[in-house]
Amino acid sequence: MNYSQLSKEELQQIYDLQKAEYDNLVAQGYSVDIARGKPCNEQLDISMPMLTAEGIENMPKNYRNYGMLDGIPEMKKIFAQMLGVDQTEVIVGGSSSLNLMYDTIQRALQFGIMGSEPWNSQPVKFLCPVPGYDRHFAICEHFGIEMINIPMDGEGPNMDLVEQLVANDDTIKAIWCVPKYSNPTGITYSDKVVERLATMKTKAKDFRIFWDNAYVVHDLTDTPDVLANIMELCAKAGNQDRVYQFASTSKVTLAGSGVACIATSKNNVKDILSHMTMQTISYNKVWQYIHYLFLKDMTNIKEIMKQQRDIIKPKFDTLIQAFENAFGDDNGIVKWTNPNGGYFISVDVLDGCAKKVCDLCKKAGLTLTAAGAPFPYGRDVNDRTLRIAPTFTSDSDLVVATQILTCCIKLACAEKLIND
Amino acid sequence: MNYSQLSKEELQQIYDLQKAEYDNLVAQGYSVDIARGKPCNEQLDISMPMLTAEGIENMPKNYRNYGMLDGIPEMKKIFAQMLGVDQTEVIVGGSSSLNLMYDTIQRALQFGIMGSEPWNSQPVKFLCPVPGYDRHFAICEHFGIEMINIPMDGEGPNMDLVEQLVANDDTIKAIWCVPKYSNPTGITYSDKVVERLATMKTKAKDFRIFWDNAYVVHDLTDTPDVLANIMELCAKAGNQDRVYQFASTSKVTLAGSGVACIATSKNNVKDILSHMTMQTISYNKVWQYIHYLFLKDMTNIKEIMKQQRDIIKPKFDTLIQAFENAFGDDNGIVKWTNPNGGYFISVDVLDGCAKKVCDLCKKAGLTLTAAGAPFPYGRDVNDRTLRIAPTFTSDSDLVVATQILTCCIKLACAEKLIND
Repeated sequence: MNYSQLSKEELQQIYDLQKAEYDNLVAQGYSVDIARGKPCNEQLDISMPMLTAEGIENMPKNYRNYGMLDGIPEMKKIFAQMLGVDQTEVIVGGSSSLNLMYDTIQRALQFGIMGSEPWNSQPVKFLCPVPGYDRHFAICEHFGIEMINIPMDGEGPNMDLVEQLVANDDTIKAIWCVPKYSNPTGITYSDKVVERLATMKTKAKDFRIFWDNAYVVHDLTDTPDVLANIMELCAKAGNQDRVYQFASTSKVTLAGSGVACIATSKNNVKDILSHMTMQTISYNKVWQYIHYLFLKDMTNIKEIMKQQRDIIKPKFDTLIQAFENAFGDDNGIVKWTNPNGGYFISVDVLDGCAKKVCDLCKKAGLTLTAAGAPFPYGRDVNDRTLRIAPTFTSDSDLVVATQILTCCIKLACAEKLIND
Repeated sequence: MNYSQLSKEELQQIYDLQKAEYDNLVAQGYSVDIARGKPCNEQLDISMPMLTAEGIENMPKNYRNYGMLDGIPEMKKIFAQMLGVDQTEVIVGGSSSLNLMYDTIQRALQFGIMGSEPWNSQPVKFLCPVPGYDRHFAICEHFGIEMINIPMDGEGPNMDLVEQLVANDDTIKAIWCVPKYSNPTGITYSDKVVERLATMKTKAKDFRIFWDNAYVVHDLTDTPDVLANIMELCAKAGNQDRVYQFASTSKVTLAGSGVACIATSKNNVKDILSHMTMQTISYNKVWQYIHYLFLKDMTNIKEIMKQQRDIIKPKFDTLIQAFENAFGDDNGIVKWTNPNGGYFISVDVLDGCAKKVCDLCKKAGLTLTAAGAPFPYGRDVNDRTLRIAPTFTSDSDLVVATQILTCCIKLACAEKLIND
């Protein structure tokens, strides 16, 4: 059924039907939350054996003491393999990659990068592919960094626009990227897009790509997306210092209690450490070693991620199946992604309906990520995009969530079409 | 023997004797390091049972997931008891209190404090009681914050000077304090000093005391020093937002892999969290819980610290006994502290001799903290103070260290007196 081809009367019939259904759902007093990309307890259970630290007696004794600011070699090696970089290009940090990103921007603001002028002393703009990760945008807003929206398509950010902007404006200092299983659209940047990012001319000499490789091993299928190696491509193009890459085990082991890293050129590593050595003596190397004992190597990490996938893939399927049942293709009011990995499904409803859907869901007891959240300043000019995070929710709650969500989409979109 | 009363001939005899001894020590090819306040392996062994995480099955499941930015209540309670504050006044962080201090200053520079002007937009000065902790001073120097030396005596910083400065200069924004078993002199601030810090008038409305309570439970005797509760005193004086207090378990459990905290007024907590929530989603709560399982409560922490003391007190005694044997009281060239707690012995040699002693020691294979390090910009205008960190070194190495150190002090000071 294509809603856009229905008469007002037909739409009114649908509206009335859905309104009755909606009132019924509201009356149930549900309380379900699919707002945040959090792993569920079953996923976290996978890593509980880590906490008994089997093999800890083999840990070099000096790991228990101060020192080794850039982390232990065992975890450097794991991240180097995971990200396709050299061990010397890795700094292993604390438990939060977001913290490393925030600190990296704060350092650039305060000190500049590799001798450049402090970003605090000049106007600074970031390119923000949209929809994107709300916490990236929140950091920029907090620091008063102006954000410029870059539309995303199935291959990544619109590179014509990116190239044109960075070539001509030296106040554009960076671009945010979640290049693999992008938050929230789930797409992986095409080889061509990655190559253009690596080779493009930038007017700002201290331009950086914030490459948040949050979902590097978070596949949901047997045919995972393959992301081109941007650091290799940058080096080849003579732009070896262009990328700050970030990753963590927050969604491999424990959320908020994983191990995070920065991977970047040796020049950048040196620059970062020259400031970081003032900030701390070392990160938690014992926790790094406990992670190493559990994670072992890439083969074992893939096995762990397979276990994760077995738990969360059915949740994605539940949602997508419910959308297909409720709407089918070519329905005229809603499109959704079916990602090969990551943590999100992105749903685009009829323009002008996203906030309304959110409000309706809220009143029926379903919490979604706020409409607009995946956009800088929380502003979705089309009022179109909803981000769905299915992983944390129990299977039964997810069924409830799909009922509420599909009902609210029909209700809001039918109303919109009636009033148009 | 009082060197200052000896004739040049007598001094020359001593010099010759010590020079022969020194040449002999150099010939041994020793390599000993007493530069940094690091716990030794035996101390770290005490906490190894922590790593098997006995009782982890009782951990609330949500601690494994994102959230709880200000830390878990179990560790808040422990720090609250340790520092004599309310649980609501505690933010539990990552593994490094230095990191929390650095970030607190960076926040003030970028954003100001509780609505005040960003410190970046104005000249900023810190008062620095000297000798003090080199890493505090390094942070200021890194940020370009001007440091003003405040002489320390047996009661703490010279409060006449502090009061006069802060009352009249609104660019003085803070004072660094290690109030208990101060690094490196080992003294604990007297009640009177703490009260004056709490009650003094400050011209800067956003003046803060950086109260680095690093050695709060680190007693070396049965009659530990007692530090007045500055946050209580500040509240009583209407200056409830004046103190940022820091502590960590780095020298209770594992160095660099402990748990750190900020304790401060509720207003400050709110202000800090409003920025911190952009920086990270949460710190490592699982590590916090593992600490809670091991530390349990203050009674148990005191027991752990008793074990630590049993290991390190003999090291302090070895050094102090060696000094007494080599010099005795009233020797005219060297004074040393005999602290009731903490990690350091501070040694004051004849003015103009500290660097020379350091250099001589270095050539004989003994690494000391660089002369000048306990002063802003590494400048000890009297070239007098040496900081000794006895804890990390093995007992046999410590005997070597005392031989080299006492010999080099005699050599340098005798030479100085001969040439005066």
